[in-house]
Amino acid sequence: MGRLIYLDNNATTQMAPEVLDAITKAEPVVYGNASSMHTFGREASKLVEDSRNNIAALLDCDPAELIFTSGASEANNTVFMIAASIIRKRGGGRIVTTTIEHPCIMESVKYLRTQGIAIDQAPVDRDGRVNLAKLEALMGPDVVMVSVMTGNNETGSVQPVKTISAMAHKYGALMHTDATQAIGKLEVSCRDWDLDYLSCSGHKFYGPKGVGVLYARKGVPYEPFVHGGEQEHGRRAGTYNTIGIYGTGIAAKLAKENIAEESARLWEMREKLRNGILNSIPDVTVNGCAERENCLPGTLDVSFANVEGESILLMLDMHGIAVSTGSACATGSLEPSYVLLACGLDVELAHGSIRFSFGRFNTMEDVDYVLEVLPPVISRLRAISTR
Amino acid sequence: MGRLIYLDNNATTQMAPEVLDAITKAEPVVYGNASSMHTFGREASKLVEDSRNNIAALLDCDPAELIFTSGASEANNTVFMIAASIIRKRGGGRIVTTTIEHPCIMESVKYLRTQGIAIDQAPVDRDGRVNLAKLEALMGPDVVMVSVMTGNNETGSVQPVKTISAMAHKYGALMHTDATQAIGKLEVSCRDWDLDYLSCSGHKFYGPKGVGVLYARKGVPYEPFVHGGEQEHGRRAGTYNTIGIYGTGIAAKLAKENIAEESARLWEMREKLRNGILNSIPDVTVNGCAERENCLPGTLDVSFANVEGESILLMLDMHGIAVSTGSACATGSLEPSYVLLACGLDVELAHGSIRFSFGRFNTMEDVDYVLEVLPPVISRLRAISTR
Repeated sequence: MGRLIYLDNNATTQMAPEVLDAITKAEPVVYGNASSMHTFGREASKLVEDSRNNIAALLDCDPAELIFTSGASEANNTVFMIAASIIRKRGGGRIVTTTIEHPCIMESVKYLRTQGIAIDQAPVDRDGRVNLAKLEALMGPDVVMVSVMTGNNETGSVQPVKTISAMAHKYGALMHTDATQAIGKLEVSCRDWDLDYLSCSGHKFYGPKGVGVLYARKGVPYEPFVHGGEQEHGRRAGTYNTIGIYGTGIAAKLAKENIAEESARLWEMREKLRNGILNSIPDVTVNGCAERENCLPGTLDVSFANVEGESILLMLDMHGIAVSTGSACATGSLEPSYVLLACGLDVELAHGSIRFSFGRFNTMEDVDYVLEVLPPVISRLRAISTR
Repeated sequence: MGRLIYLDNNATTQMAPEVLDAITKAEPVVYGNASSMHTFGREASKLVEDSRNNIAALLDCDPAELIFTSGASEANNTVFMIAASIIRKRGGGRIVTTTIEHPCIMESVKYLRTQGIAIDQAPVDRDGRVNLAKLEALMGPDVVMVSVMTGNNETGSVQPVKTISAMAHKYGALMHTDATQAIGKLEVSCRDWDLDYLSCSGHKFYGPKGVGVLYARKGVPYEPFVHGGEQEHGRRAGTYNTIGIYGTGIAAKLAKENIAEESARLWEMREKLRNGILNSIPDVTVNGCAERENCLPGTLDVSFANVEGESILLMLDMHGIAVSTGSACATGSLEPSYVLLACGLDVELAHGSIRFSFGRFNTMEDVDYVLEVLPPVISRLRAISTR
């Protein structure tokens, strides 16, 4: 196969060379259990704590407020189970979230509802942003936690988390955000946004897969999700994935250093692709927000009328271009994207959507290549479409 | 620092060179999300499925019966939550386990009891083996699941899991074993032992940290612990830790190839150390089983009268020897080992215990060095002891 272009950075990213180099060097030598008291253990523990410091600097919080998990899915599950536990202890209460959260929150919502937990989901507008008036209409003194994602994995729409956090606190609720897609692309600040919980994972910002981070503000209610050993001061059991955690810390350091120029570059590629598509292909709908400040800079979600997204994906793949029809976590389901439906797209257009997500290792030449390949692909698919 | 000898292989192991080599080569090139439909995703998925096949061969089960988790702690938590869910749905029932399980089960037991789930714990004899008569006395038609670990992480005592599995099934209960410490050291067979669930993790057999495996027999009750995406056919959500999973598979392949000779070599080192200690140090108690067939071959747990285990650990560490006072997952607690107390050791002896755990990369020279260093360390500590 010739040229390979990876435009699925919202699904996962390639490890940064600096991360790869650091973990490749550490792997053969730092192999102790970070909980052990001996030299091997202390060396492992040092890598874990270095990483915690790097991530705290990126998220603007205290290192002691961070808990390492196996990923953002586990971190999000943890927060929802904590909220459910508060509700059970109080004998009442509600969680308020949205209709466009990641599957790990949508499925936690479904599960907790089967357990009798009351959860309301605020709708979003056509641009994928939460309708603040409708969100506030759901608020009340019984709301225990509000959870609204920072940036959506499919549309790239960014929510006004700081505003929503203030609203949550006005009603005495805890505030959580799933910031998985935003880290390294937007300035995310636990302090400035006044967050109680935040979830993310390293593999979305050029770190290794298998490591998530949960921020839990000092003093907020907390219960472990994985029960067992005394790791993370009893907040998350299980042997530390030392090398993965170490790599996540290196990735966090790089993310903090490069955020402004990287975001600008991602937006430039995204806009070039967006304009190129609109200029060369008819019957196209761009989903999500148009304004840069409300958009993950590297995400472009587009619906092509009268074509199946999966067919486009497979044809582009034959040309060496990797894109997605939505969340990789929803792969296998033939349902149209619930995120796009929540934005008010009709089922047919939702079926015809493709997500391009740019990352650090993409170039303007990648955009040129996509703009060369995509128009004839769409024409051909439309020609053979039975509709 | 001069010579470094790692004798804490029950806490975690060094990655096998073959694993390190394989993942180092794969890391820069296989970076797609294994759930993605494009070429990058399919390449990642292939590594995941190769690994699943290797692990199924090691555990003697069908690959489709394996679920990748973040570690054995998560796998064990999953199984206990499933049993609790069955009990809730039935409106009654009990779990039967033992007093010497790993902290991730002991803490799941404590947590589930706070949620109203009935759990009984069978006692063990002085050699750390479950008393089968007392275990059977706890059985009854209301028992939903029996969970007994294969080999204990502290004493190395091995349980008659096949016999216990038959007992569980006689009473209509499901059978689970935490085989984390046994994999690669004993022949473990899901089919022959007629297991319903089994948990383990790759980092105990020279694979990467951060990957666990849960075997769930086809058709047994199952509920996801981490809710979210469709990964693992909806049985465990979260982006695949592709490279970690791949490395675990390589480690499984090596474990299967080397199990007989490796176990023989571990036992030889263990016995040499045991005999050497008994011949050179007075007032020593060897914990766990004496017979090889009831013992994890590389584990030696010894109590030294009138000395603190932590002091021994620190003195040995100064000589470059890494050992443990028990479970790394219990580090930070100043309590004596609950496992040794459950075996009937008095508190003082339990406080004076040290676990030596051998692994693939230890040699007979390591034993010689320990036998050179340890006797004067114990003498010195006893001399300064105020007791």
